[in-house]
Amino acid sequence: MSEITFRDATEADLPTIVAMLADDEIAESREGASVSDEYTEAFAAMAKEVYNRMLLAEIDGKIVGSLQLVFIPGVSRNGSKRALIESVRVKSSMRGHNVGTALMKEAIRVARENGCKLVQLDSDLRRPRAHLFYRRLGFVQSHAGFKKALT
Amino acid sequence: MSEITFRDATEADLPTIVAMLADDEIAESREGASVSDEYTEAFAAMAKEVYNRMLLAEIDGKIVGSLQLVFIPGVSRNGSKRALIESVRVKSSMRGHNVGTALMKEAIRVARENGCKLVQLDSDLRRPRAHLFYRRLGFVQSHAGFKKALT
Repeated sequence: MSEITFRDATEADLPTIVAMLADDEIAESREGASVSDEYTEAFAAMAKEVYNRMLLAEIDGKIVGSLQLVFIPGVSRNGSKRALIESVRVKSSMRGHNVGTALMKEAIRVARENGCKLVQLDSDLRRPRAHLFYRRLGFVQSHAGFKKALT
Repeated sequence: MSEITFRDATEADLPTIVAMLADDEIAESREGASVSDEYTEAFAAMAKEVYNRMLLAEIDGKIVGSLQLVFIPGVSRNGSKRALIESVRVKSSMRGHNVGTALMKEAIRVARENGCKLVQLDSDLRRPRAHLFYRRLGFVQSHAGFKKALT
């Protein structure tokens, strides 16, 4: 297989990103079928903040994975900046080729380079294989993750 | 009991905030005994970003609770902005007086006012009472929380 490369997403990548977000049995019901104004506006809001980026993995110029990487300064843990990872996706046809591992390792490298002392994420309780994947990357399943939808 | 009021923290609040962060059986080992340069620099990094704030609860002009509230635009969930809550603390002498509930409700109100569609947080697996507290506030324990320290 060709080499995996990484870059930050641009607005032109949105159709591929949105399709990949929906290419998931748990998330498909909460994502749209095309690039609506909500997606475009959300991407613009992310793109103007240096602390918040969408990292892409590519093989031969094709996007095969994505994740959101957010740097969060904070007072706790002796003033540690933390990195939050959200919305990890690997293109379904490319699963099992270590794309996810390579993408996560790149995110961790970038987080460290930006002075983060901690990387955190949550993963749906219905994804036991993902949990094993994160543990293999050195993550500790030390917390319970809570969400509340605002309507 | 007097009314609980809310405001954003300023640098002058740091000694109280740091003492409150350490006033916790799980967190005490990872916090410092006084306001080191790390805390001051971390607070300055937070304070210059409008998306990232430390919200305080006060009674009669005394700080009785704090939490970190972060707004995160993102592409997933149909372009939903989410709010992340970190480092929830209530002064130990004030626990059991609904300070935590009032502070969390204020954070949720502010998140909604700022266009967030989702509030999320994680809580150490060793805090079952905190989990009950979050469920009573309408949070769903749907995720596993993972952390990786960067050394």
